[in-house]
Amino acid sequence: MTSSSHHAPPPSGDRFASLTPLLMPRSVAVIGASSDPTRIGGRPIAYMLRQGFDGLLMPVNPNRQEVQGLPAWPSVEALPQAPDTAIIAVPAAQVLDTLSALGRKGTRSALVFSSGFSEVGGEGEALQQRIVAEAKRWNLRLLGPNTAGVFNANIGYYGSFASGLERGFPLPGRVGIASQSGAYAAHMLGLARARGLGTPIMASTGNEGDITLGDAIGWLVQSPDIDVVVAYAESVREPEGFIAALEAAHRARKPVILQKVGRSALGKRAALSHTASLAGDDNVFDALLGDYAVVRANSSAELLNLAYTATRRIYPVSNSLGMVTISGGAGIIVSDAAEELGLPMPPMPEPAQVALKEKLSFCSPINPVDFTAHVLNDLALAGYFTTRLIEDGGYRSVLAFFSQAGTVPSIAPRLLAELTAVKRAHPDRLFVISLIGDATQNQPYEDEGFVLFEDPTQAVAAIHAMGRLGDAFARPLPVREAQPPIDLPAGRLSEAQAKALLAEFDIAGVEERVLDDAEAAVAFATQVGWPVVMKIASADIAHKSDIGGVLLGVASPEAVREGFATLLERARLHAPAAKVDGVLVARQVQGAVECFMGIQHDPLFGPFAVFGLGGIFVEVLKDVTLRRCPFGEAEALAMIRSVRGAPLLFGARGRPPVDVQALARMLARLSEFAWRAGPGLASVDINPVLALPEGQGAFAADAVIETCEVHHAP
Amino acid sequence: MTSSSHHAPPPSGDRFASLTPLLMPRSVAVIGASSDPTRIGGRPIAYMLRQGFDGLLMPVNPNRQEVQGLPAWPSVEALPQAPDTAIIAVPAAQVLDTLSALGRKGTRSALVFSSGFSEVGGEGEALQQRIVAEAKRWNLRLLGPNTAGVFNANIGYYGSFASGLERGFPLPGRVGIASQSGAYAAHMLGLARARGLGTPIMASTGNEGDITLGDAIGWLVQSPDIDVVVAYAESVREPEGFIAALEAAHRARKPVILQKVGRSALGKRAALSHTASLAGDDNVFDALLGDYAVVRANSSAELLNLAYTATRRIYPVSNSLGMVTISGGAGIIVSDAAEELGLPMPPMPEPAQVALKEKLSFCSPINPVDFTAHVLNDLALAGYFTTRLIEDGGYRSVLAFFSQAGTVPSIAPRLLAELTAVKRAHPDRLFVISLIGDATQNQPYEDEGFVLFEDPTQAVAAIHAMGRLGDAFARPLPVREAQPPIDLPAGRLSEAQAKALLAEFDIAGVEERVLDDAEAAVAFATQVGWPVVMKIASADIAHKSDIGGVLLGVASPEAVREGFATLLERARLHAPAAKVDGVLVARQVQGAVECFMGIQHDPLFGPFAVFGLGGIFVEVLKDVTLRRCPFGEAEALAMIRSVRGAPLLFGARGRPPVDVQALARMLARLSEFAWRAGPGLASVDINPVLALPEGQGAFAADAVIETCEVHHAP
Repeated sequence: MTSSSHHAPPPSGDRFASLTPLLMPRSVAVIGASSDPTRIGGRPIAYMLRQGFDGLLMPVNPNRQEVQGLPAWPSVEALPQAPDTAIIAVPAAQVLDTLSALGRKGTRSALVFSSGFSEVGGEGEALQQRIVAEAKRWNLRLLGPNTAGVFNANIGYYGSFASGLERGFPLPGRVGIASQSGAYAAHMLGLARARGLGTPIMASTGNEGDITLGDAIGWLVQSPDIDVVVAYAESVREPEGFIAALEAAHRARKPVILQKVGRSALGKRAALSHTASLAGDDNVFDALLGDYAVVRANSSAELLNLAYTATRRIYPVSNSLGMVTISGGAGIIVSDAAEELGLPMPPMPEPAQVALKEKLSFCSPINPVDFTAHVLNDLALAGYFTTRLIEDGGYRSVLAFFSQAGTVPSIAPRLLAELTAVKRAHPDRLFVISLIGDATQNQPYEDEGFVLFEDPTQAVAAIHAMGRLGDAFARPLPVREAQPPIDLPAGRLSEAQAKALLAEFDIAGVEERVLDDAEAAVAFATQVGWPVVMKIASADIAHKSDIGGVLLGVASPEAVREGFATLLERARLHAPAAKVDGVLVARQVQGAVECFMGIQHDPLFGPFAVFGLGGIFVEVLKDVTLRRCPFGEAEALAMIRSVRGAPLLFGARGRPPVDVQALARMLARLSEFAWRAGPGLASVDINPVLALPEGQGAFAADAVIETCEVHHAP
Repeated sequence: MTSSSHHAPPPSGDRFASLTPLLMPRSVAVIGASSDPTRIGGRPIAYMLRQGFDGLLMPVNPNRQEVQGLPAWPSVEALPQAPDTAIIAVPAAQVLDTLSALGRKGTRSALVFSSGFSEVGGEGEALQQRIVAEAKRWNLRLLGPNTAGVFNANIGYYGSFASGLERGFPLPGRVGIASQSGAYAAHMLGLARARGLGTPIMASTGNEGDITLGDAIGWLVQSPDIDVVVAYAESVREPEGFIAALEAAHRARKPVILQKVGRSALGKRAALSHTASLAGDDNVFDALLGDYAVVRANSSAELLNLAYTATRRIYPVSNSLGMVTISGGAGIIVSDAAEELGLPMPPMPEPAQVALKEKLSFCSPINPVDFTAHVLNDLALAGYFTTRLIEDGGYRSVLAFFSQAGTVPSIAPRLLAELTAVKRAHPDRLFVISLIGDATQNQPYEDEGFVLFEDPTQAVAAIHAMGRLGDAFARPLPVREAQPPIDLPAGRLSEAQAKALLAEFDIAGVEERVLDDAEAAVAFATQVGWPVVMKIASADIAHKSDIGGVLLGVASPEAVREGFATLLERARLHAPAAKVDGVLVARQVQGAVECFMGIQHDPLFGPFAVFGLGGIFVEVLKDVTLRRCPFGEAEALAMIRSVRGAPLLFGARGRPPVDVQALARMLARLSEFAWRAGPGLASVDINPVLALPEGQGAFAADAVIETCEVHHAP
């Protein structure tokens, strides 16, 4: 147990500093303290007595003078001092009075184990609102209700009743746990212990009446005792706090390894029946995380793998992988995995290949570099080859496959010495060894800071994730400054209004005009060039093609005249109540690739821009990409490149490449429009966007903007 | 160590029975035997002495009368009897004479550790051919050369120099290892030992001069000592043997868990530099495996997870998953994973949900069934809920999430008793528990046959794989009977020849005719209806559109006349040497969905049919599916449903569904054509196939057939 004198809280004045009394208390009251160490009010005391809480522990129980050997107080009022935090283990009905008493006493934080609040709905929901209001009244930060609690093993503090702690307390280390599920927090703790990973601080947020997952993450990343945070999330309830936490993590260069569940329809159903809260749109969430140093783990095994690797605090920028191996087979496995993840494994430079061949004629010197099991008979080669790999190949990450051979007693000490010399000479490289050994055999490698994996495929995944974190830390945080808002017209916008609004953001429509007489239409068509498109112009007819209100390929003056009459007739017939402004005539752009751009407003995180190719790509293949607004052209270009159909924009099938720069500009400007339009903008659909060949631009052929009323909080 | 009397070889007379002397020898000679137990010729002897080989061990060394305490013989000739097998650990140059001597003596099998053969190319390749021929001459089965050997721990036999065995011998169990890489075989052994999985028999095939991976798999699946085979493959060298092994596995109801590497371009490059052999087309390989009870693992961790689960020998047919959990979070995680894999998790029937709610008001009774941590205070509920899950929900597989709580001493014995009672009452269900414990804590659960996983996501993947195996075992093996061959015309086929050939297999073309005069073309166009397509008709012009040889949408008699002249002119200009048959005129089918069908001939496994949607789906998205020929309409329909663009065929975007039955019939018939055409058929491309609305059929609009000369072996 490390003494608390070495552990410091985050800087005061910070938005997360108010959690310090909760997570690093110097004095703790247990309300509803029990003499039975297996009961919910007894467990925290038993755990703290076993682990030696480094502060003042004050049981409160009206019926006892002593609890588990400690002097007990009859009430909150009777306590000799205001505690930094209070553990509340009384029935739900007594929580409100308890909080009042704690507030009056000057208590700064509390956690409520008790259940029977919002998770049961109805009256529980109302009761929760009352206790949260009471806590706010006293400026007391509240964790829960219905929380499994917190612990901080660095000071022996256990504000938790998790039965898993009976099986073992957390190991020393620098990984923090933040979780919306108490049971899953215990699961993560158990897995971490089983693989020797230290997770000294945990916060489980329960019903999140006050303190949210974002608060917990934010405090942890600012703690000098924590390097890496693992987090489990079902739904984010407070977007500002969550984003502030991710920004704090980025500034502190501490990664968040996040398991966000409810990705699938079935998962969302399970989440709904579990917490009665919606998991939200997973694509939106993924797009949000892309701005920060967060990697998402899809399983608890992956979560632990990544957290373990991250404890080395080496996050390669522009990552690349070089490998040395005693097994050609392992080299193929690693190559497959690297390519599938998009982790580059460029070949060694030619002269270096020649040098390696001279040293060991039957080696395979490209990358993976296969020095075969022969290296086990001549271990100096291990050091030589690995040095050449780093110095000549320049790889940011190194993977060495030694499997069981690396822990055979006749081999291990010399091998460790060889590899350690290389590692110390290149401390900035992420150095991973694929090794099979027991804890004792592995420890000397761990002590030198090597990352160890039995499975080379998992090693590649971890290396790739560290590179993604490195790139994320290297990117500046997105700046979302307030900009002059745009006033949106009220109600439904006509196509012309929508296009005019977008034109102010340089989002050009195709040359077009609304005309109210057929001869003017013929004249305009002659001016822009044949063929033309004709559409009924009415803000009241949203789905024009449903009533036959769109004519394509109109190719002659007679056809324009005929079309004019047809469209007005159809409007009269199928939408007699609609106010018709006339007929819109536009040049029919040919040879364009049809794309889709849009804005979708997320209730939590605001506007997101969507991009995809048009038609089947959007409708059948759901081949779209999202990004939180606003963003610049470089980000827009990255979005455009990321869709599966992108080759069609870059010249597949013998077509000329389209004007991707113009597309990117349009998308970036659209994101700016959405940002400035604010919550009054419900959605934008520009469909199709016509992308013309390079240098010829991109045009919005149709645009729909929907607005909504914004209810301001009183 | 189990005595050999309990272990029997596969039935004699079988194609794999000739490997029995190699893998279950009663007598072994070691040629090049060494007194040094760390040398290649000393290790096998040392291992067998330590593990008590259950047979006669005869070191051969011309310079010693005794090796490691055993009497030694000076030569093969001097041996007191012909050994079942010989371990050859002499320099490459001496292997040939050694094999001759062994053959003369009557030896039935041998393995050659020595390297310096085909893996070094050139003379090594020639030397390998000579030793393989020598072995064949004596009817001696040869493993290697350049093999890491074999072991059969059930009889204490270690024909291996793997240094990994120094770290520990295989545990008792029923998983066999077959590998093309010795180092990776040792890695699998190490991983298996680390997780307590017994792998008593291993064969590493080295250069595969004679015995291949298929032979090893085939022997293992027929061994009464083996229930599950894990295999590592880089490239399959002997297709018949490999397929025979997979068929034998299917008949024996023993799954093969296969890690086939070289999936990616980078992986293929690594494989080429490692073994100088091409990894082959991974899609072809995947399609091949689809017929058999094989699951592919993409990492060694997954390989071990699946092999471990398979040792329970429960392979659910039409799998479905029911879950009970103490953590709602774990329930969401499992739901996400199940949906992503396509493993059904249907809800509990409504009356059963009501019953569960009555038993525990705050449970979540749908599926996952969340009985919360409350169940830990009332463990009878664990048995009750799990029984209801199986009996009312009818799920083929059950996952129970208990994490650390399942091994807490105050909980574990009672929980085990409750779950065991349920399991024994339903022995046909695959019963998995997500549990965190050490080996001692887990053992009682293992002893009852539960499958244990720490990570619930990995548990779902394993459950899903067992279901795929169950469905595979339930499907009959594909029958590929010889059928009357088709005589293919020699040389390049014209489009008309190709279509005529396909028409014999009911693959209808669009109504069309080759005409050599413009007025005949006009008459034919008038008869089939406007518009028509016109193409230059010449077997010598393969890519007609490259020379402007295809005209679409020809809509009037004048246009036909003009087009006729244009096409002949273009042919004269751009392909003056081509023999022109005239102009092909065809009805231009409209409103069809364009598809692609083809045959691709794999050099190892013969013809595979390919299906996809046309255009961008094939060219940009590579959205195609493959299946080995021949197959029936049901399989063809499954292929059609499996492509990502399939919704377009079933009525997406407001279109009518196309005639999928006709497509399936066409695809099945095409596969039959390819099967009967045999190796003389290089490829078929039917592009586009025009799929018309339901009931209106599907037509081959264009077809290219390429043939090749077949060189028969003398």
